[in-house]
Amino acid sequence: MRKVYLDHAATTPVHPKVLEAMMPYFSGKFGNPSNLHDIGRESKNAVEEARAKTAALIGAKPEEIYFTSSGAEANNFALKGLVQANSQKGKHIVVSQIEHFSILHPAKTLEKSGFTVTYLPTDKEGLVSPDDIAKAITKDTILVSIMHANNEIGTIEPIEEISRITKEKGVLFHSDAVATTGWVPVNVHTLGVDALSLSGHQFYGPKGAAALFVRKGVRIKPQIEGGIQEDGRRAGTENVPGIVGLGKAAELATAEVQHRMSHLAPLRDRLQKGLMDRIDHMVINGHPSRRLPHNLNVSMWYVEGESMLLFLNMEGISVSSGSACTSRSLKTSHVLTCIGTDAAVANGTLLLSLGMGNSAEDIDYVIEKLPPIVQRLREMSPLYEDMIKKEKVR
Amino acid sequence: MRKVYLDHAATTPVHPKVLEAMMPYFSGKFGNPSNLHDIGRESKNAVEEARAKTAALIGAKPEEIYFTSSGAEANNFALKGLVQANSQKGKHIVVSQIEHFSILHPAKTLEKSGFTVTYLPTDKEGLVSPDDIAKAITKDTILVSIMHANNEIGTIEPIEEISRITKEKGVLFHSDAVATTGWVPVNVHTLGVDALSLSGHQFYGPKGAAALFVRKGVRIKPQIEGGIQEDGRRAGTENVPGIVGLGKAAELATAEVQHRMSHLAPLRDRLQKGLMDRIDHMVINGHPSRRLPHNLNVSMWYVEGESMLLFLNMEGISVSSGSACTSRSLKTSHVLTCIGTDAAVANGTLLLSLGMGNSAEDIDYVIEKLPPIVQRLREMSPLYEDMIKKEKVR
Repeated sequence: MRKVYLDHAATTPVHPKVLEAMMPYFSGKFGNPSNLHDIGRESKNAVEEARAKTAALIGAKPEEIYFTSSGAEANNFALKGLVQANSQKGKHIVVSQIEHFSILHPAKTLEKSGFTVTYLPTDKEGLVSPDDIAKAITKDTILVSIMHANNEIGTIEPIEEISRITKEKGVLFHSDAVATTGWVPVNVHTLGVDALSLSGHQFYGPKGAAALFVRKGVRIKPQIEGGIQEDGRRAGTENVPGIVGLGKAAELATAEVQHRMSHLAPLRDRLQKGLMDRIDHMVINGHPSRRLPHNLNVSMWYVEGESMLLFLNMEGISVSSGSACTSRSLKTSHVLTCIGTDAAVANGTLLLSLGMGNSAEDIDYVIEKLPPIVQRLREMSPLYEDMIKKEKVR
Repeated sequence: MRKVYLDHAATTPVHPKVLEAMMPYFSGKFGNPSNLHDIGRESKNAVEEARAKTAALIGAKPEEIYFTSSGAEANNFALKGLVQANSQKGKHIVVSQIEHFSILHPAKTLEKSGFTVTYLPTDKEGLVSPDDIAKAITKDTILVSIMHANNEIGTIEPIEEISRITKEKGVLFHSDAVATTGWVPVNVHTLGVDALSLSGHQFYGPKGAAALFVRKGVRIKPQIEGGIQEDGRRAGTENVPGIVGLGKAAELATAEVQHRMSHLAPLRDRLQKGLMDRIDHMVINGHPSRRLPHNLNVSMWYVEGESMLLFLNMEGISVSSGSACTSRSLKTSHVLTCIGTDAAVANGTLLLSLGMGNSAEDIDYVIEKLPPIVQRLREMSPLYEDMIKKEKVR
């Protein structure tokens, strides 16, 4: 049976070149970078080389990169760390309603410790309005955090326009670029951000290695305290092989991002058209053009996302019914709720995210397999039967 | 040239069997454990198997294990998370002065947010007194955190006696067992702790994977918030290969810990005696018997630890001049200060920590190489010259 993995938004396989780069650092060059002897120094050098590569991917300086263990940790670090270190300036934060939970939950926690948070809605395509940001900022605002692209619906936010406003108003600006890094160009200068999160396993690096960019001169309070690793801003023995892997993945992404986009967008468009032509009552979520090149998020009436997922799984096709981080919580996606998707159709959502291993044949296989699954499941739905009857009457 | 790594307290190489267990989870079985398809499920199963193995090592239930990225993160999580979740009971914390900085720095941070902390001294051998703990606990005390063994001087603390007191007084008890796990038996029931930190790379597992045990029913506030991973207590995509590696390292440690102790203690004793016989004005730090089997911490008068370290490095011998986490900070060890070591001699400290790869020949090589290095360095010290003159006069 053909195996088609269309869940790259959940995680990617480690690239063979990334694994090759990591291998020496487990049992051979295993030193602790804090040690002053040769075995420690070679690990320290490897970490610093990875820092330079990670910085290069996003146009940052190496000393502006702080390695973390996950995008979630980077987001928690950014939100809590920036706010706590700059609380003398004010107590107000602005985020969007479609941020990842690793932004929204820390925001809720900060609310409990005396900060106020504005949660901005988006339009029906998932776009945050820069005007809304401008209006939301008060004299008390210290931080705006808007994701580069949404991890579920793929909408790419107008970060450059937002950063013009935050700069003008003298407010810090963080962007969660976990969904975009490695898939579209990400440059901290072009974007104009003060802090930015990225995660290795989202673009062919290993799980357990991620980073937070913090612009030089911006104060941030450490969240994991202890030793003086990461310039004293993030304690804990460095995950050397993981960091080396992240560095290599960053190097590959720097070289390949244009190729990735030009390979993936046509395949995604082929998948979108193929499904649209064959499945009725299907909605495309997200922005039609300002969207990640490998993202297709669709909602179907009269069918459960999880049922489709499990039937596709039996055909060797791996997809998600929403973001990986919430798939086990069985709640309707807060992102779909925000863009105004009817709860009934939101339950019939599939997130199909392509990767460099996918071929046109893979896409055609999905176009062949999914429509009959949808049809079969709908035939078991009394709601669908009613709808068909009504349509016939019309 | 012979290569002798005597810095296992800083980090250990990944065991070949651990690396073998990890390998399938980078590029083959690379799924996100949160995903419901087969590729996700096999990762989820691997994480749960590792959780069971990690739990078995310390006599815990699998559901009492929360994976983190480092011992530092586990310690931060324990101290802040337990205190924040139980602050309705009181505002007072008790720790020792020789705790790792990943306990002491969070304690300082908690002081800034309204908690009070008692920092207990130890005796000259590094032992915390259970009587001191009993006296320090007030009606306002919610948490005691005392490390199982000190990572620098190796002194094993009377955790069982302390836990009898904390249980009697109804106070939570956390122990940082990062230095002990895998080297001596660690059992959460025997120790009587409510929470316990351990770290994989300290006992032949990979860097980037560690764990916090939290006894069932004990409340803890998540520090990395977002997705519902780790039962909602620690967000972020799981470092699957790292966690699998930690599980395998735990399995190996469960089987081998007695063998490790009986192999290492005689080698350490041989090293200690060999150096004592050949180097004058040398002090052994820590407790003579209640000490980690692979630990030797010595301070020498009239010589700098870092100079000895660098000369030993040229002979192929890797050691530390203190804890890895502080070696680049160039400050006198807070542990040696606490046990009353004179600052002058504290600067001449070497931490030699053995591992299963070390042979008697390795030890004899160090016994041969270190004394002449000490002698050569002392001959350049005017203080040493003065001392020799005085001794001759006497």
